[in-house]
Amino acid sequence: MGRRILIVGTGLIGASVGLALRANGFDGEIVGTGPTEKTLKTAQEMGAIDSWVTRETADSVAAKSDVILLAGPVMSILDWMQRLAPVLGEHQMVTDVGSTKVQIVELARKLYNQPGKARFLPGHPMAGKESGGAALAEAGLFVNAMWLFTPMDRTQHALETEWRGWVAKFGARTMDLDPARHDEMCAWVSHLPQMLSTALAALLEDTFGKDATGREEVAAIGGRALRETTRLGASPYSMWRDIALSNTEPIAQTLHALEQRLAHLRENLRTPELKEEFRLANEFRALRDR
Amino acid sequence: MGRRILIVGTGLIGASVGLALRANGFDGEIVGTGPTEKTLKTAQEMGAIDSWVTRETADSVAAKSDVILLAGPVMSILDWMQRLAPVLGEHQMVTDVGSTKVQIVELARKLYNQPGKARFLPGHPMAGKESGGAALAEAGLFVNAMWLFTPMDRTQHALETEWRGWVAKFGARTMDLDPARHDEMCAWVSHLPQMLSTALAALLEDTFGKDATGREEVAAIGGRALRETTRLGASPYSMWRDIALSNTEPIAQTLHALEQRLAHLRENLRTPELKEEFRLANEFRALRDR
Repeated sequence: MGRRILIVGTGLIGASVGLALRANGFDGEIVGTGPTEKTLKTAQEMGAIDSWVTRETADSVAAKSDVILLAGPVMSILDWMQRLAPVLGEHQMVTDVGSTKVQIVELARKLYNQPGKARFLPGHPMAGKESGGAALAEAGLFVNAMWLFTPMDRTQHALETEWRGWVAKFGARTMDLDPARHDEMCAWVSHLPQMLSTALAALLEDTFGKDATGREEVAAIGGRALRETTRLGASPYSMWRDIALSNTEPIAQTLHALEQRLAHLRENLRTPELKEEFRLANEFRALRDR
Repeated sequence: MGRRILIVGTGLIGASVGLALRANGFDGEIVGTGPTEKTLKTAQEMGAIDSWVTRETADSVAAKSDVILLAGPVMSILDWMQRLAPVLGEHQMVTDVGSTKVQIVELARKLYNQPGKARFLPGHPMAGKESGGAALAEAGLFVNAMWLFTPMDRTQHALETEWRGWVAKFGARTMDLDPARHDEMCAWVSHLPQMLSTALAALLEDTFGKDATGREEVAAIGGRALRETTRLGASPYSMWRDIALSNTEPIAQTLHALEQRLAHLRENLRTPELKEEFRLANEFRALRDR
């Protein structure tokens, strides 16, 4: 993958990529940049990056890098795509780790993959923790994780093949998807569980948060069921704002479908239809557990 | 606790109580009964019960037992309460492990705790596994679990005090609640998470179950978020039917509140109100994690 990679955004994912590159034998230079000096310093101390430059001076490093990895929230990825396109050429590749892909691919079609322009490979590793930040980064974050790609062309540029090789070395499985299908499937299996967990935790906080007895009872009585269904409530708004903004319609559709399903179940708490709901749910889980 | 305890229903909870009694030094006789000979035989082989009698011949053993533990689903507990009340006297105690308490307490007020009648102590250990059955029973099932009681009188009968002593020896924490409050709180922290997990898993099964590509993609892309929010979808209808029947109104209210909350979130995917929902959810989790 040439001599130099620039990681834009050295939070949990960006810094973990740096560590994973090193752990798997990448011997080129890894430079970091991003909005927060503290994050960059942490990433450097961990060995995720060799050096860093401020956001303001990143263009000249980008121009001399073989691969640029955009590793922030979706809106910041879109910003960087616009900013970097004019300074990059066709022997360079930009790839990203954004959680939604339709808007990123739309913009990439305008700015990349054209004569004289850099290549763009849209990617999305399904890895993370409830809390982010470089401090939690680890070289093994992607082991057994799914790293999705929504490639823009059927032909693979050499840098793209090389990058996919590194992702495989990180221990990740990969799958190629159409961008719209990606965003729809992620709405179902990732965004809907998140929004549902946030809604449930927010509802419980509203109902019991100001009532000391209720809070004590929730803490005392709530077990694994409550813990698991509200765990994602700890996720940061900063990341999910961009997902909600860039995948609004698919998320709204899955939420609406779930609202209707809950109403259906509520209206059938005393009818045999409840049995059918449990049967379908049992079947879904049986397939997953097999 | 005298010489003899009869466990009615030797599934996961009933058999675990038998094992926990033995493991903690109970040296009286433990007899089992229930609808299924296979379950009773399994419980006996594990050492959870010393012997068993068929459901048809259980009355005479009940009449000679000091404590009768009713350990099936709520509707079967109500059946056994009616059946046993006439054959029991005031030096005996019945206790139960039913998941809802209002209907059980209402019936107990009619049939127990009166001159010449046996005592009744309503109980509810918050312990379980996705799958039930005697084979999964263990003496340590109640360690650190919450065992709720909804006592009918302020005065404690000696057998009640003794039973609470055994529950403490099992390693469980205990809390006394008013029965209506119990059912309301359990609707929030246990029944709502269950119904929402069932609804989500059933919806996904309906959407992708018959579509091989979709099923493959859900399996490939779905991670911990999906696994945790649908895990309870594996729960058996047989147990939840009785909970839904005996706690319909509180469950319906919490489901309706969640439906409204999801609609609110859906309508605010692009507004600052989403930030407030994440803030509340973060706060709920921060309190739980402290």
